[in-house]
Amino acid sequence: MNERIGFVGLGRMGANMARRLKDCGFNLTVVHDARPDVARELARELGTFAAESLAAVTAHADVIFTVVTDDAAMKRIFAPRGDSLFTNAKGHVFVNCATLSPAVHVDLAKRAKKAGAHTLEACMASSITQARNGTLYLMIGGEDAVYQRLKHILVLLSDEGKLMRYVGSAGRAAQLKALVNMVMNINTAGLAEGLALADALGLDLGTVREVFSQTGAASRVLATDGEDMQKRDHSCFFSAAHAAKDSGIALAMARKARINAPLAAAAYAQFARMVQLGLGELDKSGVAELTFKGRGPRKTTRPKRKKR
Amino acid sequence: MNERIGFVGLGRMGANMARRLKDCGFNLTVVHDARPDVARELARELGTFAAESLAAVTAHADVIFTVVTDDAAMKRIFAPRGDSLFTNAKGHVFVNCATLSPAVHVDLAKRAKKAGAHTLEACMASSITQARNGTLYLMIGGEDAVYQRLKHILVLLSDEGKLMRYVGSAGRAAQLKALVNMVMNINTAGLAEGLALADALGLDLGTVREVFSQTGAASRVLATDGEDMQKRDHSCFFSAAHAAKDSGIALAMARKARINAPLAAAAYAQFARMVQLGLGELDKSGVAELTFKGRGPRKTTRPKRKKR
Repeated sequence: MNERIGFVGLGRMGANMARRLKDCGFNLTVVHDARPDVARELARELGTFAAESLAAVTAHADVIFTVVTDDAAMKRIFAPRGDSLFTNAKGHVFVNCATLSPAVHVDLAKRAKKAGAHTLEACMASSITQARNGTLYLMIGGEDAVYQRLKHILVLLSDEGKLMRYVGSAGRAAQLKALVNMVMNINTAGLAEGLALADALGLDLGTVREVFSQTGAASRVLATDGEDMQKRDHSCFFSAAHAAKDSGIALAMARKARINAPLAAAAYAQFARMVQLGLGELDKSGVAELTFKGRGPRKTTRPKRKKR
Repeated sequence: MNERIGFVGLGRMGANMARRLKDCGFNLTVVHDARPDVARELARELGTFAAESLAAVTAHADVIFTVVTDDAAMKRIFAPRGDSLFTNAKGHVFVNCATLSPAVHVDLAKRAKKAGAHTLEACMASSITQARNGTLYLMIGGEDAVYQRLKHILVLLSDEGKLMRYVGSAGRAAQLKALVNMVMNINTAGLAEGLALADALGLDLGTVREVFSQTGAASRVLATDGEDMQKRDHSCFFSAAHAAKDSGIALAMARKARINAPLAAAAYAQFARMVQLGLGELDKSGVAELTFKGRGPRKTTRPKRKKR
């Protein structure tokens, strides 16, 4: 429990994981965010240090969790020159939790090795509440030795490890995460069509959801998003923009592997259209705004919080 | 328990529902199928009468379950002239269990009324085992009075009624059933893409299915069809041809209601393609034959039983 832990990327997920590890008694020594005020606020809340540079994060922590938005942000914080987490990184371990293109993890693992550092993927397939409670579903990719070294920390993020799976070398967890979200996004976009059509036909949506839940139409997203679609409650747990990004990663993998994926392509098109229409920061349940009669971008309630 | 019960359409579903009602002590007086040998065989098994004409079915039963394949078969057995279940049908009740276009139920209800007969929709959202065990999920549409009159029979098909829902007037159950299957088919075709891509990437499919089951990718079809997709076990519970038919019905409703349904369209295209390729009698899990690398129509194990 003596290693110094840092966090980079203090959005809804990162901040709550930091809170959770602090609660568990870990030594949270440094936090950082591209928005300095956000970092300062969390540092005050948790009684820790808000580093203004990435190099300072590495200087103040042995194990650094990164929970940033996308590939571009990831490349920025691990830049080859200028302010970078790779500054004097020898012996440090980077635990990368964002959903990224698998190739980014593979590249990062290589570059970390050259710098004498280690990386581990810890892809999350859960949401904000689970981050706060330490009940995240974690898919781990990377060297087994690194995994073993960090296991005592990771188990406290994943319901004593019950929700953690080691899935292989660097990039493997990102691949699997992209697949999870690809299938989830298909199910979500499909559900939005089913409920919209039921609504247009004048069927009672409560009955419809109940029937769906007991039949072959049942799914996790029916439970998490069905009522929100009906009630137009699209406050953000997992944004449409993230859904578009993840389906895009999966589609790129499918193209490369020459797998025909027409449903994934259709789901991607729906979430990309949400982004185009300015609805990207709605929850993924907001895809129902594209399918229900009488709904649309102009009639949509916008969420209060806009960024991770 | 004294009403005389008949069955028309003795495929996997109809025959097992007849067996179940016989087990429950009902008075099964007549069965009929377009294939006379099938009817004779079941009649022998259940100690009942195999009618050679539809008119004879109506003559020998008060309550007649119809479990035929599609709209065309339904129109044939209820023909306005020639051999028809509507022959001397006054006072008889027809319980129609096939998945049909909603308009067919509405039309049938009208024509039954003219003939002094009654109809009830009992759309099933379950499969063969549930038919045999009396644990079918039933969606009931039609006049409430008719429903009340038959309830003591229907409850014995639907786990003492726990799995039965009255959803509205004639055609409503067919609408809801088409929606259930539309969403189910989307989830199935999407799952086949996710597993195929995982396989192409060299991920362990057992791990992938386990991760899917604990995340936003979870669905009923993952539980029922995931392993079958992996192992290419496509012996038929719900055929791709039926999936194509039901998604087609739902898409027609969507067009009429002007609901944009790109995922439903993509799923329909996949199941329709299976039919085109001669794979229509595989189980719906066979859609994985279209997505996995190295699979395809020529390499597919065909099921033993070919028709309902």
